[in-house]
Amino acid sequence: MSLSDDQRAEIAEQRDARAETRRAVAPGLEARLYEVLPVLDHGFVRAIDYMGDDEAIVQAARVSYGRGTKAARNDEGLIRYLMRHWHSTPFEMCEIKLHVKLPIFIARQWIRHRTANVNEYSARYSILDKEYYIPAAENLAAQSNTNRQGRGDVLSGHEAQRVLDLLRGDAEQTYAHYEEMLSDDGKEGLSRELARMNLTLNTYTQWYWKTDLHNLFHFLRLRADAHAQYEIRVYADAICELTKAWVPMAYAAFEDYRLGAANLSGPAMAAIRQMLDGEDVTQENSGMSAGEWREVMGALGRSI
Amino acid sequence: MSLSDDQRAEIAEQRDARAETRRAVAPGLEARLYEVLPVLDHGFVRAIDYMGDDEAIVQAARVSYGRGTKAARNDEGLIRYLMRHWHSTPFEMCEIKLHVKLPIFIARQWIRHRTANVNEYSARYSILDKEYYIPAAENLAAQSNTNRQGRGDVLSGHEAQRVLDLLRGDAEQTYAHYEEMLSDDGKEGLSRELARMNLTLNTYTQWYWKTDLHNLFHFLRLRADAHAQYEIRVYADAICELTKAWVPMAYAAFEDYRLGAANLSGPAMAAIRQMLDGEDVTQENSGMSAGEWREVMGALGRSI
Amino acid sequence: MSLSDDQRAEIAEQRDARAETRRAVAPGLEARLYEVLPVLDHGFVRAIDYMGDDEAIVQAARVSYGRGTKAARNDEGLIRYLMRHWHSTPFEMCEIKLHVKLPIFIARQWIRHRTANVNEYSARYSILDKEYYIPAAENLAAQSNTNRQGRGDVLSGHEAQRVLDLLRGDAEQTYAHYEEMLSDDGKEGLSRELARMNLTLNTYTQWYWKTDLHNLFHFLRLRADAHAQYEIRVYADAICELTKAWVPMAYAAFEDYRLGAANLSGPAMAAIRQMLDGEDVTQENSGMSAGEWREVMGALGRSI
Amino acid sequence: MSLSDDQRAEIAEQRDARAETRRAVAPGLEARLYEVLPVLDHGFVRAIDYMGDDEAIVQAARVSYGRGTKAARNDEGLIRYLMRHWHSTPFEMCEIKLHVKLPIFIARQWIRHRTANVNEYSARYSILDKEYYIPAAENLAAQSNTNRQGRGDVLSGHEAQRVLDLLRGDAEQTYAHYEEMLSDDGKEGLSRELARMNLTLNTYTQWYWKTDLHNLFHFLRLRADAHAQYEIRVYADAICELTKAWVPMAYAAFEDYRLGAANLSGPAMAAIRQMLDGEDVTQENSGMSAGEWREVMGALGRSI
Repeated sequence: MSLSDDQRAEIAEQRDARAETRRAVAPGLEARLYEVLPVLDHGFVRAIDYMGDDEAIVQAARVSYGRGTKAARNDEGLIRYLMRHWHSTPFEMCEIKLHVKLPIFIARQWIRHRTANVNEYSARYSILDKEYYIPAAENLAAQSNTNRQGRGDVLSGHEAQRVLDLLRGDAEQTYAHYEEMLSDDGKEGLSRELARMNLTLNTYTQWYWKTDLHNLFHFLRLRADAHAQYEIRVYADAICELTKAWVPMAYAAFEDYRLGAANLSGPAMAAIRQMLDGEDVTQENSGMSAGEWREVMGALGRSI
Repeated sequence: MSLSDDQRAEIAEQRDARAETRRAVAPGLEARLYEVLPVLDHGFVRAIDYMGDDEAIVQAARVSYGRGTKAARNDEGLIRYLMRHWHSTPFEMCEIKLHVKLPIFIARQWIRHRTANVNEYSARYSILDKEYYIPAAENLAAQSNTNRQGRGDVLSGHEAQRVLDLLRGDAEQTYAHYEEMLSDDGKEGLSRELARMNLTLNTYTQWYWKTDLHNLFHFLRLRADAHAQYEIRVYADAICELTKAWVPMAYAAFEDYRLGAANLSGPAMAAIRQMLDGEDVTQENSGMSAGEWREVMGALGRSI
Repeated sequence: MSLSDDQRAEIAEQRDARAETRRAVAPGLEARLYEVLPVLDHGFVRAIDYMGDDEAIVQAARVSYGRGTKAARNDEGLIRYLMRHWHSTPFEMCEIKLHVKLPIFIARQWIRHRTANVNEYSARYSILDKEYYIPAAENLAAQSNTNRQGRGDVLSGHEAQRVLDLLRGDAEQTYAHYEEMLSDDGKEGLSRELARMNLTLNTYTQWYWKTDLHNLFHFLRLRADAHAQYEIRVYADAICELTKAWVPMAYAAFEDYRLGAANLSGPAMAAIRQMLDGEDVTQENSGMSAGEWREVMGALGRSI
Repeated sequence: MSLSDDQRAEIAEQRDARAETRRAVAPGLEARLYEVLPVLDHGFVRAIDYMGDDEAIVQAARVSYGRGTKAARNDEGLIRYLMRHWHSTPFEMCEIKLHVKLPIFIARQWIRHRTANVNEYSARYSILDKEYYIPAAENLAAQSNTNRQGRGDVLSGHEAQRVLDLLRGDAEQTYAHYEEMLSDDGKEGLSRELARMNLTLNTYTQWYWKTDLHNLFHFLRLRADAHAQYEIRVYADAICELTKAWVPMAYAAFEDYRLGAANLSGPAMAAIRQMLDGEDVTQENSGMSAGEWREVMGALGRSI
C-alpha cells in the first residue's frame, strides 16, 4: 500500500486532533480511528466515523431516557438475547463509516449489498491513479474441479509466473494507453468518462462506505465466510477487527450466533434427533439431498 | 410534557457527561444534545446522537484522506451545488438519532418513511403510560369544504368544547378499562398484547428514530410543508431547528432548494417563458389543468 | 367478514375477466386471484397481482434468454440449493401484491417490515367504517407469567365476558363519538384527520401491500412463527397458503430451510458434536446461557 | 448486437407462447415483451415481465375492491395529480423486470440506484463472452474544457482513429490473455474469479434488473437527462420507450412533471416574480450564485 506524503500528513493530522463530545464514545474504535489497515497489495480499510457503542444497542432496545444504570452483565445478556432471536432494529442504531481502497472487481461484489451509503471516487470527473492488484503467488489458485465457483490448488511456480506476467503486462499497457488517450499534450484528450473503459478490472478504486451494525454483520457473515472469494474476505477480516474494537459485546454475540453458527433444516434436525436416540440415519432415509447431507455431516464433524 | 424526576435526572446526567473524541464534532448540535424539545401537549423530540457535520458531506463527495484545507467558502459552494443538482449520496454520509414521543395516529403517518431505523416502545412487552393528545382549542379545525384532506376554520367555542369533552372522556375511559383488563388484582390479567387494542389512537408512544441527512431532508420537505397535518408539522419544525444547529450550510441549501423551492412542469415553464415575453397566457391556452394553473399562479404571486 | 354487495360484485367481476398474456403464469395462484380469504372476525387477505413463478427464480439465477429446457427436477434442485445457501436475489425476482384488511394494532406490527410497498386507506381523506376486532373467547389469553411478551392460559368464562364487554362497549362508544364529531348535521364537523384519533386500536384499516418473494419469506418466517402474536400469525398463515399455491417449489424449500429450521450457535454445535460422541454435556459445561440451553434442548427434543 | 441462433430461438419461443390470466394486462407492453431493443454496439434491453398498468396505480391509491368503473379521464386526472404532488406509493404498485446487456463501466453507474433487484451474470462461476464496447466515431468526445465531468467536441478523424485502435487492441489482447489464463489445455487453469480481473471495463456483462415504477421514474429522470453520460442515456431512452408502451398515462405525467420540469429555488422564484412585475433583476441582486443564475436563465430561455 502506497500513500503519498500529503495523504500521510492528512491522516496524522486527523489522528492528532481531539475534541470534546457529549455523545457515546467507543474507546476501542477511537484508538483505531482514521488508521490505515493495509489489505491486499495496494488496498486498505480505515474507520472514518462511528455512531453508538454496545450500550447504544441496549438503550435503543429499551427506548431509554438515559444511559441507564443497569450492570454491564445485563447489557451483555440482552445483546446476546437480541442476536439469538434475530432482533435486528437495536443493532441498526449503531453506524460506521469506512474509507476503503479496493480493486474494481471486488468493488462490484461488495456493492451488491445495497443497504449501505456509498460515495465512490469518480473516474468521470477525476483521473484514476496507476494502481492495480496483482495476487501474491500463494493466492494464485487454479479453478476448482468440484465447485464451479471455487478455487483449487495454488498454481505451480512456472504457471504462476506465466499468469503474473500476463496480469502485470496488461495492466501496465492498458494504463499507459489510458494516460495516452487522456493526454492533451499535442492531442485532443479523450473525455475521462470514456477513457476509463480501457482500464482492467484489477485497477484500484476507493469509496466512503457507511452502514449500520445490523447490515454490517450481514455483510460480514457472507464475506468473512470461508466460501467468499479470498480478495473480499481479507477486507471483511479487517472490518471484523475494527468491529470487535468498536462493539465488543455485540461482536462476540455475532461470532457465536452467526459466524460460527449453523442453520439446520427441518430434515437435518430430525436426523440429529434420531442420531441422538441411537438410530441409524443415512442420507437415503434422511430426506436430505446428497449435497445437504454432506454439509450437515461436515458441520457435525461426522465422516461420510 | 411531563417527565418523571428519574427521567429528568437521567437526561441531566447525559448532558453533564463529556468525553474526548477524534470524530468530527458539530458544536451547534452538541449544545442541544439530549435536550427535550416539547411538542404538542405531552410529546417531545430530542437528539440522542449524530454522525458527521457539514464538512463530512464535502469529505465524502471528495473521498478525502483528511479533513481538507479548503476554505469554508468553498465547502459551502460545493454543498449548494450538490443540493441543487440532486446529488444525494454525500448527504447520506451524515446520520442523526432522535428520541421522539408522539401520538400513535401521528406515528402511523411518520412510519411511512421507510428509509429510517426505528425502535418503538413495545406495548406487547410493557404497559403504556396514561398520556393522550388533546388538541389545543386553536387547533381544533373543522373539515375543509374544498379539500377532502384538509382543515377548514377553527371550531367555535361551543363546538370545540363538545369535541374536547368527547375526546377527553373517551381517552380516560378506554385507558381505565385498559388498566382494568390488565389487572391481576383478584382477576386473571389479560395479556398486554391484547389489552392495548382498547386504547385510542391519540395515546402517546415513543421511539428511537435514526436516519441519514438525505432522507431526513426528504422527510422534512414533506412534513414541514404547509399541506402536512399540523400535528406532524410541529415535530418537523422542531427537527428543522436541530438540523439547522447540526449542519448549518446544508440546512441553508435545503431551505433554498427544497423547502422554499417550486417544481414547475414543462407546460408551466413554457407559460412563464411566454409571460416574460409579454404574451397573454390563460389556463385554457397553457395546457395546464385548473388545479395546476391555480398552484402555479399562486407560486408566482399572480391573482387568477 | 362483511363485504357489501357492491364489493362482492366488483370482486366477482375481476375473477370472471380473462385476458391473454405472454408473461409467466402461475396456475395455482391464478385460481385464487382476487378471492377473499377471511382472517379474524372482519379481516381478510386477497391476492391482487403477482409477477413470476418458480421458473422465474431459476431464469433470473441463470440470467437466461429463454424459459429454458431444463427439467423441472433440476429447477427444484437449484431452488433448494439457492435457499439453503442464502442466495436472496433470485427470490427477489418474484413479486406479489395483496389487499389486506386488518386491525390497526396489527397493522402497526406489520409495517415494521420496511422492504415492501404500501398504500393504506386514508383516514385523513375518508371516513373509516365501523368495524373493530373482538377476539374469539378461545383467543382471550392472560398475560404469560414466564414471558413478558407472551400469552398464558385462556381467560375463564367469567373473566372473558368481562373483557369482551369492555372491548365491545368502548369500541362502540368511541366510534359513535367519532361519527358525532364528524357530523355537520347542525354542527361544524371536526376535520377527519383529527376525529380519527378517537378510534381504538382494534379498528380495522386496509391496505394494498406489495413485496418480493425474498422479503415475503422473511416476513413469513417471523410472523408465521409460534412466537408471533396470534392476531398477525393468522394473516401469515393465510399468506403461506397463497404462496404455496403460487411458487410450490420455493415454498417447499422455505418450509424445510427456514420455517422448520433451527439456527444453532457455535457452542450449540459443539455440544451436539460432543453428545453424538457420547459425552455428557450439561448447560454448565456447554458455554450456553440457561435460556439458549433450554431452547436448544427443546429443538433437539431432549428433556432438561 | 449479436445473438446466437439458440438465443434467438429461445426469445422467439417466449414471444410465441400465450396463456390466459386474470391479472391486469398492459397491451402496449405485451406487444414488446421479450423483444430485443439493441443499444450501443453489442448491448440490449428487453422487458421480461411486468406487474400492473395505469389502472393499477389508481386502484392502489383508492385501495379498491375492484377494477373500478371510473372513467379513464378521471384516472388520468388522478395520476397527474399524484405525480404533481409527489405521491410515490401508488406508482410503487407497478413493477417491471428487464434483461439488460451493458458494458461493465456503465453497469457500475447503473448499480448506484440501490432500490432495485439485480441478478448479474457471474464471472466467478462462468466465462464471459468476448464482447466489448467500442464507441462509434461520432461519440468519441474530447474532455470538456468547462465541465470536469462532461464531454467536449468530437475527436477529429485522426485522433479518433488513434483512440479506437488503442481501445480495440487492448480489449482484444486482454481477452486473449483471459482465455489463455483460464485454459487448462496442457496447463493448470487459473480460477475464473481471478482471471476476470484482466478484462477491461468495456467488457459486456448482463443482468436481470427489476424495479417498481416510482424508482424507475427516478432512474429515468437522472439517466435520460442531457447531463447523463451518453452510454447510459441510450439505455434510459430505450427504457423510456418501453415504459411509455406500458403505462402511457403515468409516462405522460412523468414527462410533464419530471423530465421536462424545472426545480426552482426560493431565490429563483423570487426573481421570476420580480421579472414578471417588470423589475430589473441581475445575478448580483438575485441572491443566486453565478452557476445557478446561468441555469435558471437557461431554463427561462433568457440570454445572459
